[in-house]
Amino acid sequence: MTELASAAFTASSPAKAMIAAFLHDVWDNGNADAVDTYLAESYTIHHDPGDGWHGQTLTRDGFKHRLVTSRAPFPDQKFSVDMMLEEGNRVAVTWRWSGTFLADLPGFPATGKPVHTSGITIYSVDGDRLTGHWQVTDRMSVFQQLR
Amino acid sequence: MTELASAAFTASSPAKAMIAAFLHDVWDNGNADAVDTYLAESYTIHHDPGDGWHGQTLTRDGFKHRLVTSRAPFPDQKFSVDMMLEEGNRVAVTWRWSGTFLADLPGFPATGKPVHTSGITIYSVDGDRLTGHWQVTDRMSVFQQLR
Repeated sequence: MTELASAAFTASSPAKAMIAAFLHDVWDNGNADAVDTYLAESYTIHHDPGDGWHGQTLTRDGFKHRLVTSRAPFPDQKFSVDMMLEEGNRVAVTWRWSGTFLADLPGFPATGKPVHTSGITIYSVDGDRLTGHWQVTDRMSVFQQLR
Repeated sequence: MTELASAAFTASSPAKAMIAAFLHDVWDNGNADAVDTYLAESYTIHHDPGDGWHGQTLTRDGFKHRLVTSRAPFPDQKFSVDMMLEEGNRVAVTWRWSGTFLADLPGFPATGKPVHTSGITIYSVDGDRLTGHWQVTDRMSVFQQLR
Protein backbone atom coordinates (compact mmCIF):
# COMPACT_ATOMS: atom_id res chain seq x y z
CA MET A 1 0.00 0.00 0.00
CA THR A 2 1.19 3.49 -0.82
CA GLU A 3 -0.11 6.99 -0.18
CA LEU A 4 -3.75 7.61 -0.96
CA ALA A 5 -4.83 8.61 -4.45
CA SER A 6 -6.23 11.92 -3.26
CA ALA A 7 -5.03 14.28 -0.56
CA ALA A 8 -8.67 15.29 0.00
CA PHE A 9 -9.90 11.75 0.66
CA THR A 10 -9.24 9.84 3.89
CA ALA A 11 -9.98 6.09 3.81
CA SER A 12 -12.02 4.88 6.80
CA SER A 13 -11.87 1.11 6.22
CA PRO A 14 -9.43 -1.54 4.92
CA ALA A 15 -11.43 -1.97 1.69
CA LYS A 16 -11.47 1.78 1.02
CA ALA A 17 -7.73 2.06 1.71
CA MET A 18 -7.07 -0.89 -0.62
CA ILE A 19 -9.08 0.71 -3.43
CA ALA A 20 -7.35 4.10 -2.97
CA ALA A 21 -3.96 2.32 -3.16
CA PHE A 22 -5.10 0.32 -6.23
CA LEU A 23 -6.09 3.49 -8.08
CA HIS A 24 -2.76 5.11 -7.23
CA ASP A 25 -0.42 2.15 -7.89
CA VAL A 26 -2.20 0.55 -10.85
CA TRP A 27 -4.02 3.36 -12.66
CA ASP A 28 -2.03 6.52 -11.76
CA ASN A 29 1.42 4.89 -11.85
CA GLY A 30 0.72 2.14 -14.40
CA ASN A 31 2.34 -0.57 -12.25
CA ALA A 32 1.04 -3.73 -13.98
CA ASP A 33 2.79 -6.06 -11.51
CA ALA A 34 0.69 -4.54 -8.71
CA VAL A 35 -2.43 -6.03 -10.37
CA ASP A 36 -1.44 -9.36 -8.74
CA THR A 37 -1.67 -7.69 -5.32
CA TYR A 38 -5.07 -6.06 -5.71
CA LEU A 39 -7.10 -8.32 -8.03
CA ALA A 40 -8.71 -11.70 -7.43
CA GLU A 41 -7.77 -14.31 -10.03
CA SER A 42 -10.99 -13.51 -11.88
CA TYR A 43 -12.31 -9.96 -12.37
CA THR A 44 -15.68 -9.19 -13.97
CA ILE A 45 -16.53 -5.90 -15.69
CA HIS A 46 -20.28 -6.10 -15.06
CA HIS A 47 -21.12 -2.76 -16.66
CA ASP A 48 -18.82 -0.12 -18.19
CA PRO A 49 -20.34 1.41 -21.36
CA GLY A 50 -17.65 2.48 -23.82
CA ASP A 51 -14.97 0.33 -22.20
CA GLY A 52 -13.59 -2.25 -24.65
CA TRP A 53 -13.93 -4.99 -22.01
CA HIS A 54 -17.56 -4.20 -20.96
CA GLY A 55 -19.29 -7.43 -19.90
CA GLN A 56 -16.12 -9.53 -19.85
CA THR A 57 -14.52 -11.59 -17.07
CA LEU A 58 -10.74 -11.13 -17.13
CA THR A 59 -7.75 -13.02 -15.75
CA ARG A 60 -5.03 -10.92 -14.10
CA ASP A 61 -3.09 -11.05 -17.38
CA GLY A 62 -6.21 -9.91 -19.24
CA PHE A 63 -6.58 -7.01 -16.81
CA LYS A 64 -2.91 -6.05 -17.31
CA HIS A 65 -3.54 -5.93 -21.07
CA ARG A 66 -6.58 -3.67 -20.48
CA LEU A 67 -4.48 -1.47 -18.18
CA VAL A 68 -1.64 -0.99 -20.68
CA THR A 69 -4.05 -0.40 -23.59
CA SER A 70 -6.28 2.03 -21.66
CA ARG A 71 -3.41 4.07 -20.20
CA ALA A 72 -1.45 4.44 -23.48
CA PRO A 73 -3.15 7.64 -24.78
CA PHE A 74 -2.91 9.34 -21.35
CA PRO A 75 0.30 8.02 -19.71
CA ASP A 76 0.38 10.72 -16.97
CA GLN A 77 -3.22 10.14 -15.90
CA LYS A 78 -4.27 10.76 -12.29
CA PHE A 79 -7.39 9.80 -10.34
CA SER A 80 -8.62 11.99 -7.48
CA VAL A 81 -11.15 10.32 -5.17
CA ASP A 82 -14.01 12.51 -4.01
CA MET A 83 -15.83 10.08 -1.68
CA MET A 84 -16.40 6.38 -0.99
CA LEU A 85 -19.46 4.53 0.37
CA GLU A 86 -19.19 0.95 1.60
CA GLU A 87 -21.93 -1.59 2.24
CA GLY A 88 -21.37 -5.33 2.47
CA ASN A 89 -18.87 -6.44 -0.14
CA ARG A 90 -19.23 -3.35 -2.34
CA VAL A 91 -17.61 0.09 -2.34
CA ALA A 92 -18.85 3.05 -4.42
CA VAL A 93 -16.14 5.53 -5.46
CA THR A 94 -16.75 8.99 -6.96
CA TRP A 95 -13.70 10.28 -8.79
CA ARG A 96 -12.26 12.96 -11.03
CA TRP A 97 -9.62 12.13 -13.63
CA SER A 98 -7.12 14.08 -15.70
CA GLY A 99 -4.43 13.17 -18.23
CA THR A 100 -2.49 14.63 -21.14
CA PHE A 101 -3.54 13.30 -24.57
CA LEU A 102 -0.08 12.09 -25.74
CA ALA A 103 -0.74 9.06 -28.00
CA ASP A 104 -3.29 8.71 -30.83
CA LEU A 105 -6.71 7.10 -30.44
CA PRO A 106 -8.52 5.67 -33.53
CA GLY A 107 -9.69 8.71 -35.50
CA PHE A 108 -8.21 11.15 -32.97
CA PRO A 109 -4.55 12.22 -33.34
CA ALA A 110 -2.93 13.12 -30.02
CA THR A 111 -3.27 16.84 -29.18
CA GLY A 112 -0.77 17.12 -26.32
CA LYS A 113 -3.53 18.90 -24.36
CA PRO A 114 -4.96 18.06 -20.93
CA VAL A 115 -8.25 16.14 -20.72
CA HIS A 116 -10.51 16.04 -17.67
CA THR A 117 -13.47 13.83 -16.79
CA SER A 118 -15.22 12.16 -13.85
CA GLY A 119 -17.01 8.94 -13.01
CA ILE A 120 -18.44 6.64 -10.38
CA THR A 121 -17.29 3.05 -9.88
CA ILE A 122 -18.88 0.36 -7.68
CA TYR A 123 -16.15 -2.16 -6.82
CA SER A 124 -16.94 -5.69 -5.63
CA VAL A 125 -14.51 -6.86 -2.94
CA ASP A 126 -13.68 -10.36 -1.63
CA GLY A 127 -11.45 -10.03 1.44
CA ASP A 128 -8.48 -7.90 0.34
CA ARG A 129 -8.98 -8.41 -3.40
CA LEU A 130 -11.15 -6.77 -6.06
CA THR A 131 -13.46 -9.10 -7.99
CA GLY A 132 -15.12 -6.68 -10.41
CA HIS A 133 -16.85 -3.37 -11.04
CA TRP A 134 -20.00 -1.57 -12.30
CA GLN A 135 -18.94 1.82 -13.68
CA VAL A 136 -20.19 4.89 -15.52
CA THR A 137 -17.72 7.50 -16.78
CA ASP A 138 -18.51 10.86 -18.38
CA ARG A 139 -17.03 9.83 -21.74
CA MET A 140 -18.98 12.62 -23.50
CA SER A 141 -16.68 15.20 -21.89
CA VAL A 142 -13.62 13.18 -23.02
CA PHE A 143 -14.97 13.05 -26.58
CA GLN A 144 -15.46 16.84 -26.55
CA GLN A 145 -11.83 17.40 -25.45
CA LEU A 146 -10.10 15.10 -27.97
CA ARG A 147 -9.92 17.67 -30.81
CA MET B 1 -44.76 5.52 -1.29
CA THR B 2 -45.68 3.38 -4.26
CA GLU B 3 -44.32 0.24 -5.84
CA LEU B 4 -40.57 0.07 -6.36
CA ALA B 5 -39.01 1.46 -9.51
CA SER B 6 -37.66 -1.93 -10.53
CA ALA B 7 -39.08 -5.41 -10.10
CA ALA B 8 -35.49 -6.72 -9.89
CA PHE B 9 -34.52 -4.48 -6.98
CA THR B 10 -35.68 -5.02 -3.38
CA ALA B 11 -35.10 -2.11 -0.99
CA SER B 12 -33.53 -3.16 2.33
CA SER B 13 -33.78 0.14 4.25
CA PRO B 14 -36.15 3.12 4.62
CA ALA B 15 -33.79 5.41 2.69
CA LYS B 16 -33.48 2.93 -0.19
CA ALA B 17 -37.26 2.45 -0.32
CA MET B 18 -37.76 6.24 -0.32
CA ILE B 19 -35.32 6.69 -3.23
CA ALA B 20 -36.93 3.87 -5.24
CA ALA B 21 -40.35 5.50 -4.70
CA PHE B 22 -38.91 8.95 -5.62
CA LEU B 23 -37.55 7.63 -8.91
CA HIS B 24 -40.87 5.99 -9.70
CA ASP B 25 -43.24 8.80 -8.65
CA VAL B 26 -41.18 11.82 -9.67
CA TRP B 27 -39.01 10.72 -12.60
CA ASP B 28 -40.94 7.82 -14.16
CA ASN B 29 -44.42 9.27 -13.65
CA GLY B 30 -43.53 12.98 -13.76
CA ASN B 31 -45.53 13.79 -10.62
CA ALA B 32 -44.18 17.27 -9.79
CA ASP B 33 -46.36 17.59 -6.65
CA ALA B 34 -44.55 14.55 -5.20
CA VAL B 35 -41.33 16.61 -5.11
CA ASP B 36 -42.67 18.18 -1.89
CA THR B 37 -42.81 14.70 -0.30
CA TYR B 38 -39.32 13.54 -1.20
CA LEU B 39 -37.11 16.66 -1.27
CA ALA B 40 -35.76 18.82 1.53
CA GLU B 41 -36.48 22.54 1.10
CA SER B 42 -33.02 22.93 -0.40
CA TYR B 43 -31.47 20.44 -2.87
CA THR B 44 -27.87 20.71 -4.12
CA ILE B 45 -26.66 19.22 -7.41
CA HIS B 46 -23.05 18.81 -6.31
CA HIS B 47 -21.85 17.20 -9.55
CA ASP B 48 -23.78 16.24 -12.68
CA PRO B 49 -21.80 16.99 -15.87
CA GLY B 50 -24.10 17.86 -18.77
CA ASP B 51 -27.05 18.61 -16.51
CA GLY B 52 -28.23 22.21 -16.93
CA TRP B 53 -28.37 22.63 -13.14
CA HIS B 54 -24.89 21.22 -12.37
CA GLY B 55 -23.45 22.95 -9.29
CA GLN B 56 -26.71 24.70 -8.33
CA THR B 57 -28.75 24.60 -5.12
CA LEU B 58 -32.47 24.45 -5.93
CA THR B 59 -35.69 25.18 -4.09
CA ARG B 60 -38.50 22.63 -4.51
CA ASP B 61 -40.00 24.90 -7.19
CA GLY B 62 -36.61 25.05 -8.92
CA PHE B 63 -36.42 21.24 -8.85
CA LYS B 64 -39.94 21.00 -10.32
CA HIS B 65 -38.83 23.26 -13.19
CA ARG B 66 -35.78 20.99 -13.76
CA LEU B 67 -38.06 17.93 -13.68
CA VAL B 68 -40.52 19.27 -16.25
CA THR B 69 -37.73 20.56 -18.54
CA SER B 70 -35.67 17.34 -18.32
CA ARG B 71 -38.61 14.98 -18.87
CA ALA B 72 -40.11 16.87 -21.85
CA PRO B 73 -38.10 15.16 -24.65
CA PHE B 74 -38.70 11.68 -23.15
CA PRO B 75 -42.16 11.79 -21.48
CA ASP B 76 -42.45 7.97 -21.11
CA GLN B 77 -39.05 7.58 -19.45
CA LYS B 78 -38.46 4.76 -16.97
CA PHE B 79 -35.67 4.12 -14.46
CA SER B 80 -34.71 0.56 -13.52
CA VAL B 81 -32.60 0.27 -10.37
CA ASP B 82 -29.80 -2.29 -10.49
CA MET B 83 -28.43 -1.97 -6.93
CA MET B 84 -28.13 0.43 -3.99
CA LEU B 85 -25.37 0.85 -1.39
CA GLU B 86 -25.94 2.86 1.78
CA GLU B 87 -23.44 4.30 4.24
CA GLY B 88 -24.21 7.05 6.72
CA ASN B 89 -26.40 9.69 5.09
CA ARG B 90 -25.61 8.68 1.50
CA VAL B 91 -27.06 6.09 -0.88
CA ALA B 92 -25.41 5.07 -4.18
CA VAL B 93 -27.85 3.93 -6.90
CA THR B 94 -26.89 2.19 -10.16
CA TRP B 95 -29.62 2.49 -12.77
CA ARG B 96 -30.60 1.91 -16.36
CA TRP B 97 -32.93 4.32 -18.16
CA SER B 98 -35.02 4.24 -21.30
CA GLY B 99 -37.40 6.66 -22.99
CA THR B 100 -38.89 7.47 -26.39
CA PHE B 101 -37.47 10.63 -28.03
CA LEU B 102 -40.79 12.46 -28.61
CA ALA B 103 -39.98 16.21 -28.30
CA ASP B 104 -37.10 18.16 -29.92
CA LEU B 105 -33.85 19.00 -28.15
CA PRO B 106 -31.73 21.96 -29.36
CA GLY B 107 -30.17 20.81 -32.64
CA PHE B 108 -31.84 17.40 -32.47
CA PRO B 109 -35.36 16.98 -33.89
CA ALA B 110 -37.36 14.25 -32.14
CA THR B 111 -36.95 10.83 -33.81
CA GLY B 112 -39.79 8.91 -32.14
CA LYS B 113 -37.23 6.18 -31.42
CA PRO B 114 -36.31 4.57 -28.08
CA VAL B 115 -33.16 5.78 -26.29
CA HIS B 116 -31.32 3.80 -23.61
CA THR B 117 -28.63 4.83 -21.14
CA SER B 118 -27.35 4.18 -17.61
CA GLY B 119 -25.83 6.05 -14.71
CA ILE B 120 -24.87 6.09 -11.06
CA THR B 121 -26.25 8.60 -8.54
CA ILE B 122 -25.09 9.21 -4.96
CA TYR B 123 -28.01 10.73 -3.07
CA SER B 124 -27.56 12.66 0.18
CA VAL B 125 -30.37 11.97 2.66
CA ASP B 126 -31.52 13.87 5.76
CA GLY B 127 -34.13 11.79 7.59
CA ASP B 128 -36.82 10.96 5.03
CA ARG B 129 -35.86 13.72 2.57
CA LEU B 130 -33.29 14.03 -0.22
CA THR B 131 -30.86 16.97 0.09
CA GLY B 132 -28.79 16.55 -3.07
CA HIS B 133 -26.84 14.31 -5.43
CA TRP B 134 -23.46 13.58 -7.12
CA GLN B 135 -24.18 11.89 -10.45
CA VAL B 136 -22.55 10.61 -13.64
CA THR B 137 -24.71 9.51 -16.57
CA ASP B 138 -23.57 7.91 -19.81
CA ARG B 139 -24.64 10.89 -21.91
CA MET B 140 -22.34 9.77 -24.78
CA SER B 141 -24.71 6.86 -25.48
CA VAL B 142 -27.68 9.27 -25.46
CA PHE B 143 -25.89 11.57 -27.93
CA GLN B 144 -25.23 8.60 -30.24
CA GLN B 145 -28.94 7.64 -30.21
CA LEU B 146 -30.44 11.10 -30.91
CA ARG B 147 -30.12 10.93 -34.73
